[in-house]
Amino acid sequence: MVERRKPIKVNEAIERVMNYKRGGSVRFVSIEESYGHFLGEDLIADHHVPPFDRSPYDGFALRAKDTEEASRNSPLQFEVVGEIGAGSVFDGEVRHMQAVRIMTGAQIPAGCDAVVMLELVEELNEDGKSSILLKRSLTAGENISVAGEDTKKGDVLAQKGTYVNPGIVALLATFGYKQVPVSAKPKIGIIATGSELLDIDEPLKPGKIRNSNAFMVYSQIIRAGGEPIYFGQFSDDFDTCYEQVNDAFHQVDFLITTGGVSVGDFDYLPAIYEKIGATVLFNKVGMRPGSVTTVAEKNGKLLFGLSGNPSACYVGFELFTRPIIRNFLHSDHPVLKKEVAFLGTDFPKPNPFDRFVRGHLSYENGRLMATPVGLDKSNVVSSLGAANILILLPGGTRGYERGMEVSVILLEDQEGMKVQEFIQSDRNARRRQRHDG
Amino acid sequence: MVERRKPIKVNEAIERVMNYKRGGSVRFVSIEESYGHFLGEDLIADHHVPPFDRSPYDGFALRAKDTEEASRNSPLQFEVVGEIGAGSVFDGEVRHMQAVRIMTGAQIPAGCDAVVMLELVEELNEDGKSSILLKRSLTAGENISVAGEDTKKGDVLAQKGTYVNPGIVALLATFGYKQVPVSAKPKIGIIATGSELLDIDEPLKPGKIRNSNAFMVYSQIIRAGGEPIYFGQFSDDFDTCYEQVNDAFHQVDFLITTGGVSVGDFDYLPAIYEKIGATVLFNKVGMRPGSVTTVAEKNGKLLFGLSGNPSACYVGFELFTRPIIRNFLHSDHPVLKKEVAFLGTDFPKPNPFDRFVRGHLSYENGRLMATPVGLDKSNVVSSLGAANILILLPGGTRGYERGMEVSVILLEDQEGMKVQEFIQSDRNARRRQRHDG
Repeated sequence: MVERRKPIKVNEAIERVMNYKRGGSVRFVSIEESYGHFLGEDLIADHHVPPFDRSPYDGFALRAKDTEEASRNSPLQFEVVGEIGAGSVFDGEVRHMQAVRIMTGAQIPAGCDAVVMLELVEELNEDGKSSILLKRSLTAGENISVAGEDTKKGDVLAQKGTYVNPGIVALLATFGYKQVPVSAKPKIGIIATGSELLDIDEPLKPGKIRNSNAFMVYSQIIRAGGEPIYFGQFSDDFDTCYEQVNDAFHQVDFLITTGGVSVGDFDYLPAIYEKIGATVLFNKVGMRPGSVTTVAEKNGKLLFGLSGNPSACYVGFELFTRPIIRNFLHSDHPVLKKEVAFLGTDFPKPNPFDRFVRGHLSYENGRLMATPVGLDKSNVVSSLGAANILILLPGGTRGYERGMEVSVILLEDQEGMKVQEFIQSDRNARRRQRHDG
Repeated sequence: MVERRKPIKVNEAIERVMNYKRGGSVRFVSIEESYGHFLGEDLIADHHVPPFDRSPYDGFALRAKDTEEASRNSPLQFEVVGEIGAGSVFDGEVRHMQAVRIMTGAQIPAGCDAVVMLELVEELNEDGKSSILLKRSLTAGENISVAGEDTKKGDVLAQKGTYVNPGIVALLATFGYKQVPVSAKPKIGIIATGSELLDIDEPLKPGKIRNSNAFMVYSQIIRAGGEPIYFGQFSDDFDTCYEQVNDAFHQVDFLITTGGVSVGDFDYLPAIYEKIGATVLFNKVGMRPGSVTTVAEKNGKLLFGLSGNPSACYVGFELFTRPIIRNFLHSDHPVLKKEVAFLGTDFPKPNPFDRFVRGHLSYENGRLMATPVGLDKSNVVSSLGAANILILLPGGTRGYERGMEVSVILLEDQEGMKVQEFIQSDRNARRRQRHDG
């Protein structure tokens, strides 16, 4: 008996999965370890930037109003009454026709309201007395970085869930985060099923292939921000597989299985879900590859039944598992960014289904060009290495031509998108196509 | 006395640094650890993909020539003589009007040259004998994934130096790399100088700022593929600083200092280079920020003297240190990718120098839009968190308008570019501007 499954739309499937989103806990790591984590709390300025009026250059601080008459033909002479390095403070007040030598980053001395760059003055030394000759006038505030001009105390500089890149690290250091609150990574179990699978280091045998999905998904989990736990490769034996899935399920935040979800005699996962008592959210999605992708939940915990086919497994993970991981990390932009690009080549295949074709994004004179990589047979792995996008080719067309507008999903992007933006972008694309067509 | 330094062009500076490039060693990590590393050797297919002719679907394998007469009105009946799961092999040969039930991924039985999908046949069972009814003809090779159609044994699937992403991990698993040869990461020392610097957890004091550069560079090193070693924050005292720089220099592959390179009385680095016996490659670059970036070498080992100014430090690292790191990792595309984008906003500042403005890259209907972030004062840090590009604004103009073509450097891109492509792209841009103008 072949079960007839009713496919649902990709966007509907994403929404069903996201009904079970839940945020994880927050923990602290040292700032050195923080790169590549996700902020567990909003990053807040604990002081103004700059914290005080300071000099952006090496130069001389003085009073602008004293400089009004300075010109190339009649330079004015200022007495140098002190010298401050960055980190030092000038005691006392600078008075009429006086100047203080100041280094980049140092605090502007009391009384001063302008800085002239070192290169623009002539330094004199007469009888052990230092002075400078100034050949131009300055306006009040000239060459002064004013306290708070960049950032005010209390400003939110990055929201929780933000990927910690080097710029964020600089902010964390500036605002005193020696220990950084980061989102705890979800523990995500992986079980590979399929008696056709060999271990990586086994020699090839007739009818068998090496298990690549488990390790691919393992690294996809890391890229998405999760902590993978590989439970190994299980046989297609029902009872063994049930025990192992059930055990693993209790040790993780989410569980991924690869393989075993087709409508075939050797595909036990649907029966295992039933025996576990999990509710199937969907078991067929209107897309290629990955139509047999199945997601189930029990007590709010999700099981992702990804296809055993490498491309389908890859696509199913990025569409359905990745947003759940990013949400766990407190991001409100959990879905991969979807953008418009131009097809870099003809894609003549008739296309009854919505397809997610692995592609390579390149740039041509400021335009995004999307080119399918490899043969794009759904069981081909070699093209995955070069892929940095999924090209979305809606079904119901007779093929695509070079230069046509397509939607692409950016696989390496860290900013992401809100779920509703992702879904809305398809509607916008369809509307645009109707207008064009 | 103020030293007058002669600035050199950015591209010239990159070329001078790259004269001292050297590749590092290769080590092995488990495939689970390989994500985010860089291949130390070319990735080579150890077998055809697929390794044998196989079925891309669940269905029935049979001989195409037997199906010639099949049609909706006169379906043909085939005897089902066996059943093979993925990973099993059918013993014997399939003969005239026979079929074998076959699962996705299973090897095509001897004699067969086509597969019909499960959904397209009617299965019969009469007196314990299985058969199928076929309503259409098949062509030889239909629904068969042929051995080697994706990849031939011996093919180079990814070059050494390639960033290991999940697709590369899939390839590594498929081709038996349980242990993966990866490029050993260069050890890169960091020393922060400047008596104005506070530790992250110190309360703010008048005239002082917290040390953000060291931690920012620390994470930039990780992103670039290096292993950072932070030696701490040194005072501006010359002798102490010399000892510490000299000690650190012997423990690392490259050494970075932040601060202390301006032409100021408290900037000791130039004198320290001299005392170490290092040759200065350049100490002034015609760009803003980062004009005082200094690079020196001793016995082929490089010292990067980055500015104490956060933006200048950031830019100097990405332009000069990153390519050296990627080259150490065996990449032949060591420089960040430079592309054309359209300016997303007016940038009215007159611009005597080549500027590298931190910006955010977004996409508008398939076009790259580059928008400067924050105020872009060179000592502003808050904008760095949102920056994913550097916008290159060549000097000698009276400002830029929204929509103008600009070059952008992609900070998060892993593919990179060859040094000569990077340099050539500026020439192309200038040529284009001349044609337009």
